[in-house]
Amino acid sequence: MPVRRLQVGVAGLGRMGKRHALIWLQQVHRADLVAVSSPDAAERQWASEELAPHGVAVYEHFADMLAHGGLEAVCTASATSAHAEQSNMAIRAGKHVLCEKPLSTTVEVSQSVLDTAATRPDLKVICGFSRRSDASYRAAYEKVEQGLIGRPTVMRCQSCDILDPTGQFVSYAAVSGGVFVDSCIHDIDLALWFFGKESKIKSVHAVGTAACHPDLRQYNDSDNAIGMMEFHDGRMVSLFASRTMAAGAEDSTEIIGTKGKLVVNMMPRVNHVHVYQAGGVLQEMPQNYWERFENAFVTQANRFAETVLDDKPSWIELESAVEVVKIGVALQESMVTGEKIWFDEKGQRVNKAQL
Amino acid sequence: MPVRRLQVGVAGLGRMGKRHALIWLQQVHRADLVAVSSPDAAERQWASEELAPHGVAVYEHFADMLAHGGLEAVCTASATSAHAEQSNMAIRAGKHVLCEKPLSTTVEVSQSVLDTAATRPDLKVICGFSRRSDASYRAAYEKVEQGLIGRPTVMRCQSCDILDPTGQFVSYAAVSGGVFVDSCIHDIDLALWFFGKESKIKSVHAVGTAACHPDLRQYNDSDNAIGMMEFHDGRMVSLFASRTMAAGAEDSTEIIGTKGKLVVNMMPRVNHVHVYQAGGVLQEMPQNYWERFENAFVTQANRFAETVLDDKPSWIELESAVEVVKIGVALQESMVTGEKIWFDEKGQRVNKAQL
Amino acid sequence: MPVRRLQVGVAGLGRMGKRHALIWLQQVHRADLVAVSSPDAAERQWASEELAPHGVAVYEHFADMLAHGGLEAVCTASATSAHAEQSNMAIRAGKHVLCEKPLSTTVEVSQSVLDTAATRPDLKVICGFSRRSDASYRAAYEKVEQGLIGRPTVMRCQSCDILDPTGQFVSYAAVSGGVFVDSCIHDIDLALWFFGKESKIKSVHAVGTAACHPDLRQYNDSDNAIGMMEFHDGRMVSLFASRTMAAGAEDSTEIIGTKGKLVVNMMPRVNHVHVYQAGGVLQEMPQNYWERFENAFVTQANRFAETVLDDKPSWIELESAVEVVKIGVALQESMVTGEKIWFDEKGQRVNKAQL
Amino acid sequence: MPVRRLQVGVAGLGRMGKRHALIWLQQVHRADLVAVSSPDAAERQWASEELAPHGVAVYEHFADMLAHGGLEAVCTASATSAHAEQSNMAIRAGKHVLCEKPLSTTVEVSQSVLDTAATRPDLKVICGFSRRSDASYRAAYEKVEQGLIGRPTVMRCQSCDILDPTGQFVSYAAVSGGVFVDSCIHDIDLALWFFGKESKIKSVHAVGTAACHPDLRQYNDSDNAIGMMEFHDGRMVSLFASRTMAAGAEDSTEIIGTKGKLVVNMMPRVNHVHVYQAGGVLQEMPQNYWERFENAFVTQANRFAETVLDDKPSWIELESAVEVVKIGVALQESMVTGEKIWFDEKGQRVNKAQL
Repeated sequence: MPVRRLQVGVAGLGRMGKRHALIWLQQVHRADLVAVSSPDAAERQWASEELAPHGVAVYEHFADMLAHGGLEAVCTASATSAHAEQSNMAIRAGKHVLCEKPLSTTVEVSQSVLDTAATRPDLKVICGFSRRSDASYRAAYEKVEQGLIGRPTVMRCQSCDILDPTGQFVSYAAVSGGVFVDSCIHDIDLALWFFGKESKIKSVHAVGTAACHPDLRQYNDSDNAIGMMEFHDGRMVSLFASRTMAAGAEDSTEIIGTKGKLVVNMMPRVNHVHVYQAGGVLQEMPQNYWERFENAFVTQANRFAETVLDDKPSWIELESAVEVVKIGVALQESMVTGEKIWFDEKGQRVNKAQL
Repeated sequence: MPVRRLQVGVAGLGRMGKRHALIWLQQVHRADLVAVSSPDAAERQWASEELAPHGVAVYEHFADMLAHGGLEAVCTASATSAHAEQSNMAIRAGKHVLCEKPLSTTVEVSQSVLDTAATRPDLKVICGFSRRSDASYRAAYEKVEQGLIGRPTVMRCQSCDILDPTGQFVSYAAVSGGVFVDSCIHDIDLALWFFGKESKIKSVHAVGTAACHPDLRQYNDSDNAIGMMEFHDGRMVSLFASRTMAAGAEDSTEIIGTKGKLVVNMMPRVNHVHVYQAGGVLQEMPQNYWERFENAFVTQANRFAETVLDDKPSWIELESAVEVVKIGVALQESMVTGEKIWFDEKGQRVNKAQL
Repeated sequence: MPVRRLQVGVAGLGRMGKRHALIWLQQVHRADLVAVSSPDAAERQWASEELAPHGVAVYEHFADMLAHGGLEAVCTASATSAHAEQSNMAIRAGKHVLCEKPLSTTVEVSQSVLDTAATRPDLKVICGFSRRSDASYRAAYEKVEQGLIGRPTVMRCQSCDILDPTGQFVSYAAVSGGVFVDSCIHDIDLALWFFGKESKIKSVHAVGTAACHPDLRQYNDSDNAIGMMEFHDGRMVSLFASRTMAAGAEDSTEIIGTKGKLVVNMMPRVNHVHVYQAGGVLQEMPQNYWERFENAFVTQANRFAETVLDDKPSWIELESAVEVVKIGVALQESMVTGEKIWFDEKGQRVNKAQL
Repeated sequence: MPVRRLQVGVAGLGRMGKRHALIWLQQVHRADLVAVSSPDAAERQWASEELAPHGVAVYEHFADMLAHGGLEAVCTASATSAHAEQSNMAIRAGKHVLCEKPLSTTVEVSQSVLDTAATRPDLKVICGFSRRSDASYRAAYEKVEQGLIGRPTVMRCQSCDILDPTGQFVSYAAVSGGVFVDSCIHDIDLALWFFGKESKIKSVHAVGTAACHPDLRQYNDSDNAIGMMEFHDGRMVSLFASRTMAAGAEDSTEIIGTKGKLVVNMMPRVNHVHVYQAGGVLQEMPQNYWERFENAFVTQANRFAETVLDDKPSWIELESAVEVVKIGVALQESMVTGEKIWFDEKGQRVNKAQL
């Protein structure tokens, strides 16, 4: 019996798209990368040189890639604004989908993917929250499942990027959805994962500042922000996001339970080396999330192939990916308006008096 | 010329009072402990055995101790409810005062100490925020002063106590002022210290839960709480307090600036020992704040003696100690009501519309 | 132009052989695993189930695998006693070779591989010292190359395995070459790598004990041993090997230079998780070298494919692999006899008087 | 009943002498510093300004200080060459003695202190191995006593000083006894402490180099050296000493037992602060042993006062202090000659053949 490999296409060949394409090409034993698409000529040129010699077809239009013979699954690594539309198209074309996070920067558009997916329960539609495939977060989750820390009660999260002195990311704020939708989205997802479905969001509140990039204010965005999430069962999350860390990327998470605490990535480190020099002991840090999470993306791709090929249940529910956007958008709004935002137990926004 | 030693009396001989008394007796070279007072007979019995042989007079009434011949300064280590009254009495009697934190659990009573002190500018009246005398916080502060991390923008603080399975501290909640006044008070003080006087509080917001000690709810208190402080210049503080940590006392602080970040006590440790055993590498943690901060109390006492004897300016302004209580009380109120609380640039509570 | 993949066969399917086979099958983009061989029926059964469906031919005899059509390279992952013979056979058959360390437990047999390889300079013959392909050791080496720590002068190494309470490894001592040839071989190789070819061994000395497994004495072996290497240019290495660590595998290396020091794997850790529980902060450790070095083996396989396909120079000289055995054997002898062993600058064993 | 304080004199007011004097003056509650002596006029001038105002008598001659009325105990903090003679004089004068380590750089002179002390069993004569009073080493020792790591089998020790670019310490090599007597003496003492009296030294061997300070060779000394100690019961110690560490003082110790391992000071640190800056996370290191061990010296002084005043048994046997010198001297000799040195079970130097 010959071994079957999932036939995958990657949409988008920007920085992340290239990485996804190479992972599918080189590091997923049970998959073949058969096609890629990008509207950008330079990106297609890269694909012609790097991917085509391995038998990968290169398309300009996503719709054309969908029609590639034998294609079974799509990884949408395009701009966030295209995630939902491409996912919807792919589902309608009968393809499994691994969609880069977030589904969209708005709840409504995110919901559309959920609705489309509901029409094709035979397909796997998975939003790529990479930390769920990171070995350390998985180890932490297992310990929680084993009861090691009792009932998780509080989470403290930070998602911090290195300072970009060029400030090029500022213009990106126009489309990113803002710091809470773009940066904290992983932390919100982690909270939903670790607290579980029974925990329903009750309120969010956030404040932010433009400490290094005052131009962000024109987009109603901040480069440093703190937020909090409160759940109806009393659980709480404290969030911190920054675009201006001097030393590198810091993505750390504390899960505090009634019998113990877990910390993932207490002190960021790029490898096992310590440097002792005049001044003290230096530990180099990841400069970006890729250095920290590359392996998680590889694992995620392999899990996706396995989930489709073996028809396993998805490791993450699509509803959750919509809920994450809802909370992120509310935090962003709270940061802009200064108002606390409330939800009832059904997840509807209400006034506090209505609770 | 003989060397002069500050003649000190300690008020209160509970757990902290005993510690203060022994520090003044044994570890402050430029001071003599000459008197102590306590309304509690058992505490006075302890003093008769441990302190009296060293020439320390033991009083039942604080007023009598104030009249002790030659007494120059008082350390008020009594119950929080007595801090302000004893400080006021001592100032009126012409004594320098080192007052345990907080001045009081209310702003009004705290202010009374400030008012009394204003009548005697010749006296040193210092509120004992011990972390300001901790070597690590002082080293961090110096680095900030040197510009090492640029402009401090965000602080993340946690003040967490070990879980007390007896729950005896629950009844203490009736008088403690609540988790933000009792536990976070140090973090609020640190924020005022590191951000400086020019930073004026703009808003506070908090949420809390009674995860392990539901009886706390009768006192409107929580055993786990998160809060945030926003300043008019955009600076922010994220707070976390817990009374239920399984592993020990965790008091850690991050100061995030535009050019770097400082972390004090990233991973709590009780000494320089690591234990490698089946399971992994274990580092023992302090079980309470005393194990972490004992040296800070010793330093504080020595600084106080030096400040008085050499007529140096105080290292902490008394106004700040009142401001700390104001913010702590507002956080506690926000946690109870769910409402965000606003302040104008003069520090007056206002509606958001009034800003 | 179609992409060419190296056609690889793996000899030996024991614990390490299986790992090697799966790496070549799944994680080396530029190679195909086409054949495996094992004299063991159970191992071949495993291969029939796990490898054959992917098109891998399964042989009983190594010689038959060598004759597999299209085979270009061999990875010898068999028992140490077979490493040299199989390598020699493969070279004579015109195959590139990646040989598991060590070449042999004797200098003479190791040398035979070098001699055979000399007859076929067109082939890549590489001894798989996996640490040379570990990201942290490579980062450390680059820092040394950049001059970050000045001239490396001293190395402190430990290679420690977790305690095996069954003591099954004791019987392995009969063929392992002993603790210095089996465990310290990597550290000796690291020393030759970091110090460079100009450093010539001058003396070795070792002592050992059988702390937990007294039966080792019948094989003239120890379960804990310390050794030292001295070079003619004054450089020195301190070695420590243990088979009886309670907490897990500890492979740490310090490289001390005139301007700084590098430490690789100061505190072993299995992931980014810290567990705070009653007692303190726990960090889980790797339980064996595979948990620490799996990625290094993947990298090594990819480097080997690249070296052969692109005809690059090998990253490690075969002479060095013989030298490593020479030093390991001398350390083992010193441990047994209690005598210090000397070498002249040409590498010949001499009496001290002859130096 | 008035409290009695030990009346102490300090001999020698060099760098360490000044520190000792100030500790006795300021930080030992149960002692009074009553006298000091120094043959150096500048040192006496310092004492006149800093100590005399506190009632401390200042002497030029040690013999005169011994005659100071009421003097009960002497701390000899003079040059190593004077330790033994002053200790002997003090014992004969009926004074308790806390002698800085080592007793001497030769076994014979060290033994003379033991002999003199034997004539006055009523006096406490203690050699100040400060690490025995360090909180972390004491915690480690307690864990060993509790059986936490089973039977200690191997120790790995390093005592490393920061590089002194002036090289002024080179001339000190003429009288220091060499790197093993001067730097490793603490590690040798730790080994005797942790292994216990039943472990008898069997062999030592050492090699060294002058990596940064070639002038050391004229004194037969090294700036980097490694050594090993073997005991008759199979226990082993690996030593590393350096005078040329770039980053600071590193004094770390591993105690490896059959059931676990303890590490004291795995990564040296000066306080609880981590600095995140471009490049990574920096932890400042102690620049000298004083920053690491100051508290140990304070504890040691308090223990000494308590031992004398309460007539407690000494925490360290004087025989051990002689044994330490014997081993240090043998290591130094081995480093110079290249020969391994053997001892029989009675501690006599023998040829290997005599064992």
